[in-house]
Amino acid sequence: MKALVGEHIETLKPYVPGKPIEELERELGIEGSIKLASNENPLGPSPKATEAARALLEKGHIYPDGAAHRLRAAVAKFHGVSPDEVITGNGSNEVLTIAVRTFCTADDEAVVSQYSFAAYPIICQAQGMTIHRAPMKEPLTFDLKAMAETITPKTKIVFVANPNNPTGTYVPADELRWFLGEVPDDVIVVVDEAYHEYVQAEDYASAETMRDVHERLIICRTFSKCYGLAGIRAGYGIAPAALIDRMNRVREPFNVNLLAQDAAAAALDDLAFVERSVAINEEGRGILEEGLSALADSGVSWIPSQTNFLLVKVPVEGVKVYDALLRKGVIVRPMAGYGLGDYVRISIGTPDEVRRCLNSLYEVLPTLVQREEA
Amino acid sequence: MKALVGEHIETLKPYVPGKPIEELERELGIEGSIKLASNENPLGPSPKATEAARALLEKGHIYPDGAAHRLRAAVAKFHGVSPDEVITGNGSNEVLTIAVRTFCTADDEAVVSQYSFAAYPIICQAQGMTIHRAPMKEPLTFDLKAMAETITPKTKIVFVANPNNPTGTYVPADELRWFLGEVPDDVIVVVDEAYHEYVQAEDYASAETMRDVHERLIICRTFSKCYGLAGIRAGYGIAPAALIDRMNRVREPFNVNLLAQDAAAAALDDLAFVERSVAINEEGRGILEEGLSALADSGVSWIPSQTNFLLVKVPVEGVKVYDALLRKGVIVRPMAGYGLGDYVRISIGTPDEVRRCLNSLYEVLPTLVQREEA
Repeated sequence: MKALVGEHIETLKPYVPGKPIEELERELGIEGSIKLASNENPLGPSPKATEAARALLEKGHIYPDGAAHRLRAAVAKFHGVSPDEVITGNGSNEVLTIAVRTFCTADDEAVVSQYSFAAYPIICQAQGMTIHRAPMKEPLTFDLKAMAETITPKTKIVFVANPNNPTGTYVPADELRWFLGEVPDDVIVVVDEAYHEYVQAEDYASAETMRDVHERLIICRTFSKCYGLAGIRAGYGIAPAALIDRMNRVREPFNVNLLAQDAAAAALDDLAFVERSVAINEEGRGILEEGLSALADSGVSWIPSQTNFLLVKVPVEGVKVYDALLRKGVIVRPMAGYGLGDYVRISIGTPDEVRRCLNSLYEVLPTLVQREEA
Repeated sequence: MKALVGEHIETLKPYVPGKPIEELERELGIEGSIKLASNENPLGPSPKATEAARALLEKGHIYPDGAAHRLRAAVAKFHGVSPDEVITGNGSNEVLTIAVRTFCTADDEAVVSQYSFAAYPIICQAQGMTIHRAPMKEPLTFDLKAMAETITPKTKIVFVANPNNPTGTYVPADELRWFLGEVPDDVIVVVDEAYHEYVQAEDYASAETMRDVHERLIICRTFSKCYGLAGIRAGYGIAPAALIDRMNRVREPFNVNLLAQDAAAAALDDLAFVERSVAINEEGRGILEEGLSALADSGVSWIPSQTNFLLVKVPVEGVKVYDALLRKGVIVRPMAGYGLGDYVRISIGTPDEVRRCLNSLYEVLPTLVQREEA
């Protein structure tokens, strides 16, 4: 009798998303919680996007445009590329999956970084691939030199998250450009820029400015973060037309829903909303960092971030901080699943949400530290 | 230099969806067209579903529940199964894709039927699999005996669409039960019941009544047809918990969008809407069949259907009928891509839409036949 699944599926541990707030509240019997666990936009969705989606509710029985013409045209215009160089996905997560399914087989290998987005190795393992992890350099930053050295003749795809989740760190433009030149021509490089809009560092640049350096380059962006459409589901990839053509053969015909196509196109046009989102993120990060500074003597520190979250080192197991905050109605993300057991990841909410998170941390941390010392 | 993609991708011809009505109208410079090409529900979406989706628009920035608890609970209750036996998808198309990615590798083979849903062989080819096609029996009906004989020791998955798209035909309960008993235990059987709600035949039964006969059975349903949610995207699979568990490892964490989860759960509860949808479909099919009878002398006939569409044999190339109807603002589906060049597939719209389609057919057909004879 044939096995139900291969070893690669049998040993595959799926991505564990944060639980919905309603479910956690039900489990704990609490109310009025705030969720700072999934890097969602605390301003809500772009209002222009919501209006575009609302206008389509009555047409929910019509299949989406399988080619996503309008959305692809909007993305192409935004980036100054051809629509043939754009693929849209059910979130950028699906663009990653399509890329692996299109370009890789079980005989191929992938290179990822330590402490990077969990989806990359999961998707590659589901494809039956072998995965190699390059180490990071301090402070929890992509070491592109180490990544380049990890590439072998069997490597078919490499993933760079810039900035990176869950560390919040980035690689400067000159390092990324060097890396893209260093990677062998036949290796696909995916640069995942899910948090691009939040970056303030002056020596950062999107890989869209480096498309001349490496041909097999796929740049991923999402509408789930700064555009506030995580629930609506839309993301995209930019790559040479030859790559997009092959990816479209694997893409499901109606992968991006009807509402998401117009909502995302409208969001892309809502520059004012993006500006407000970035501004409130900067404000919130300032408050969070200042508040965490007060806990420095207790052993709290954080990794400098270019994103809408902060990876915070705590003096006790991260999961204990997560649990204690949860009971105060503040949901953050424990990081043991990423091999970062001493950390929690805190999404930057509104200033009020950040202050509530800090106050809860001030309340619970001393007890946790005492218990640890006892 | 490594090839960009393997031969299985290089030779893969993707599914070609019907063009959106707006795009066709723009291309042709016409207005007020009707689309009878994608088997959409002419009543629109279930109003309960629309309301559920509307209530979530302002929460579009929140990630969907990765486990789709509420929707899975609703489906489980509806079918009298455990939520552990339910997987949800971005349309049932995605459930099919997840099944193939979970259970099959490039070393496995698939068995499909001639003239069945195009997605099955496309998904299997994308996985690098070898595909075998069993012949149909007259009138364009699944020949389950032929399918059973096509299974070899290398077969890992078999697809039965019941009723079938694009033929509209079904297999009676006793034949399906016999087949499920005949298939080797280690072969996955997918029974795709996308059109289940429309079936009137008394000797039909859902495979959900046959789960005791074959353990590795996945039953797929969709919200895209009778529930009117093609644009919102939701479908599901029912299978033993061991299969669902493995499929969930491959499933993307946020595959079903926030609005779709609640909309689909609400639609499942909207029995009155399903009844109205089935009733108007019966009425429309009656009008269509009666109208087509008047063209019998011109060589028009159709395959008896248990669905919301009719596969119509025409006396000239189907694509010519499609083109001529298109210019009258009536969009049907040419079938050459399915190897059914003498046919068009007509979705059953409202009675008025069906009459308009018939009148247009009466107008264009004589000229087409004349040209053919000239």
